[in-house]
Amino acid sequence: MTERPRVVIVGAGFAGLWAARGLAGAPVQVLLVDRNNFHTFLPLLYQVAAAELEPEAIAYPVRSILRTMPNVDFLLAEVEGLDLAGQQIQTSAGTIAYDFLILATGSTNHFFGVPGGQEHAFPLKTMADAVALRSQILHCYEQAAHQTDPELRRQALTFTIVGGGPTGVEFAGALAELINGPLRKDYPHLNRQDSRVVLLEAQNVLLPGLPPRLQTYAQARLQRMGVEVQLQASVEEITDSAVRIADGLTIPTQTVVWTAGVQGLPEASAWGLPVVRGRRVAVLPTLQSPEHPNVYVLGDLASLEQAGRALPMVASVATQQGKAAAQNILRQLRDEPPLPFRYQDKGSMVTIGRNAAVAHVFGRSFTGFPAWVLWLGVHLLNLIGFRNRLLVMLNWAWDYFFFERAVRLISPRLCDGNYFPSTFFV
Amino acid sequence: MTERPRVVIVGAGFAGLWAARGLAGAPVQVLLVDRNNFHTFLPLLYQVAAAELEPEAIAYPVRSILRTMPNVDFLLAEVEGLDLAGQQIQTSAGTIAYDFLILATGSTNHFFGVPGGQEHAFPLKTMADAVALRSQILHCYEQAAHQTDPELRRQALTFTIVGGGPTGVEFAGALAELINGPLRKDYPHLNRQDSRVVLLEAQNVLLPGLPPRLQTYAQARLQRMGVEVQLQASVEEITDSAVRIADGLTIPTQTVVWTAGVQGLPEASAWGLPVVRGRRVAVLPTLQSPEHPNVYVLGDLASLEQAGRALPMVASVATQQGKAAAQNILRQLRDEPPLPFRYQDKGSMVTIGRNAAVAHVFGRSFTGFPAWVLWLGVHLLNLIGFRNRLLVMLNWAWDYFFFERAVRLISPRLCDGNYFPSTFFV
Repeated sequence: MTERPRVVIVGAGFAGLWAARGLAGAPVQVLLVDRNNFHTFLPLLYQVAAAELEPEAIAYPVRSILRTMPNVDFLLAEVEGLDLAGQQIQTSAGTIAYDFLILATGSTNHFFGVPGGQEHAFPLKTMADAVALRSQILHCYEQAAHQTDPELRRQALTFTIVGGGPTGVEFAGALAELINGPLRKDYPHLNRQDSRVVLLEAQNVLLPGLPPRLQTYAQARLQRMGVEVQLQASVEEITDSAVRIADGLTIPTQTVVWTAGVQGLPEASAWGLPVVRGRRVAVLPTLQSPEHPNVYVLGDLASLEQAGRALPMVASVATQQGKAAAQNILRQLRDEPPLPFRYQDKGSMVTIGRNAAVAHVFGRSFTGFPAWVLWLGVHLLNLIGFRNRLLVMLNWAWDYFFFERAVRLISPRLCDGNYFPSTFFV
Repeated sequence: MTERPRVVIVGAGFAGLWAARGLAGAPVQVLLVDRNNFHTFLPLLYQVAAAELEPEAIAYPVRSILRTMPNVDFLLAEVEGLDLAGQQIQTSAGTIAYDFLILATGSTNHFFGVPGGQEHAFPLKTMADAVALRSQILHCYEQAAHQTDPELRRQALTFTIVGGGPTGVEFAGALAELINGPLRKDYPHLNRQDSRVVLLEAQNVLLPGLPPRLQTYAQARLQRMGVEVQLQASVEEITDSAVRIADGLTIPTQTVVWTAGVQGLPEASAWGLPVVRGRRVAVLPTLQSPEHPNVYVLGDLASLEQAGRALPMVASVATQQGKAAAQNILRQLRDEPPLPFRYQDKGSMVTIGRNAAVAHVFGRSFTGFPAWVLWLGVHLLNLIGFRNRLLVMLNWAWDYFFFERAVRLISPRLCDGNYFPSTFFV
């Protein structure tokens, strides 16, 4: 063909961004499409919700990344449809033809049909979610400060987290530190016994999948920080003022945070791609769509098993798949067969609070300060952009030495239902 | 009386905050009421609009300031009415009785009846205005990046500033630097000739009131930075796509920034306070309302003449009046007569850009680098909070050495018509 083949990437998350990087400088034109003009470093999202970091610190402008990739262009647009036969996507900025398509739109919340979940629970999946949750927490305190009814005051100051996985554990710890530190100083007239952080886990351990030693450490540590951990507690219903648990127990709470489940985006099936359990798109080991060898599906949206187990919805899978998809497209252009994707699991880490974390890396387990330092280092190194690292370090140091929280922002709901601007440049 | 007299302060701007500080530790109960829970450092607001500073850097949480003032409480609420006879105010959080009232609600824009001003011009008076303006500027670039019609592209990239006073001059310079630096790098495919910054001033000089040498320096400097300065250009009409000037000239422009006039808030007259020209409330030299000796009106809202000239709507007047009002209330409580307010004018400074400013202090004029360093120092020293100073310095250094802009944020309009969360904690 006279023109370079056009690769359209939908989604500037870990998968989409690393795919773009893999195609930079290659004999293809790349168009990266996202509804936001920034990449979000999701592993630290819970710290935005806990008023520890400003959104700017974990968001990075896509255009700044692309400055070094002349063959990659960016389009700020919402993808509205996919025409697989015609090889084009419909976006809010018009129709775009592709030779190769990479779909990496990520995942959304899965409430498993819990009544009230969709309506009343606060998810923690996007920057908008994080800012909304932070707003809710701080609003509850402003409310409580002038609330004369003790019942309603306690209800406003009870924060319930559903899900004892990494996100739930990390957020519970960060929230406990926010409440016991800065908020106590800002609201000296509030009775500290009125503030509660409740962590609900349906299984009988926190951090399912990690070694038992790390599970027990995490639980003990959270309890020491004042978090009420309730195991084997499956949520039956969520309202705007309470959460009801299987055994009939009801907790009066104005804020329920949902970290218990995610699924692929609903669009996928509408776009004619076959979806499996969890609304994820089934892909070949090469990450290609079975029916459409020029369509790749990556990250949380893709459903792929390895050694009989579905790959987890984590950043490391997404980045590795992004690189692999880029390589496979280049192989296809050289008429070489795409290679099957192999996920290299480097282990996992969960931070609980000041000087406290658990890490399971290279088959070894760490807890406490060493794990915490390891966690800090790995996350700082993986942040994009020197300025972001500087900002995050500044905030962490600030919080660590002054027991403060740098950024505490209450934001109203936007007209589009979001709490956070859809677009920003850092 | 058995209970300490209650002083209610409306507005946590410079006047309200310095009044609260003046009453800290005194035998009074103070309630500070504001619709935002942060104080905004307005002198640097234009830098938020120019993507130079994040809102967090020039906003400071009221509750953090009050931590050191046990007799001062804060209420996050909107003031809806004033009952002068009954000595109480109506707020969104209920009715509040006062023994003394300090009104310091500031000022809003004055479009002098220019058609389209209210509808289409972007003001620069509040944090919401600044974020909205920054959003508009960056939106125009995103639009232009995929705009094929050259006319519409130029229109999107033409930014017109109405008003050659300090705000207009400072913003024009900051905007020129934003466009010539970071935006050029982010949008390499855009023709640099398509971007225009036009500064319109109705009088025949920029910075009216400053010494002629500083006026000519500012104009020459702006022109060197590519700003098109048009003097004796009074605006006749503003639409969503153009601005029309007296002599019939029409400039196609999607963005018109209004810095040409301010006035007191409309509520004042509705509250039964006699307002004069510019909707400001007439006060005695003691800053008291003539009819109500226990009601003080301060800052932009107050109309007071000194040496035959109305006091300017600037931060230094507001802070000095805040201190004076606090002293006068304490004098009244000691049955001493309130003292007349005397404004100490320490001079004025206007920054134009990198290494370029004008300063007129202690009757002496400075330009260029010395004035710029003076400007930097004075503004850093006047910022509240060590962390804010650190953030601002970090951003300034970043911009200065890397010719970058740290924070560039596009924010959608909120449901309440604002572009910026009404409340946040830093």
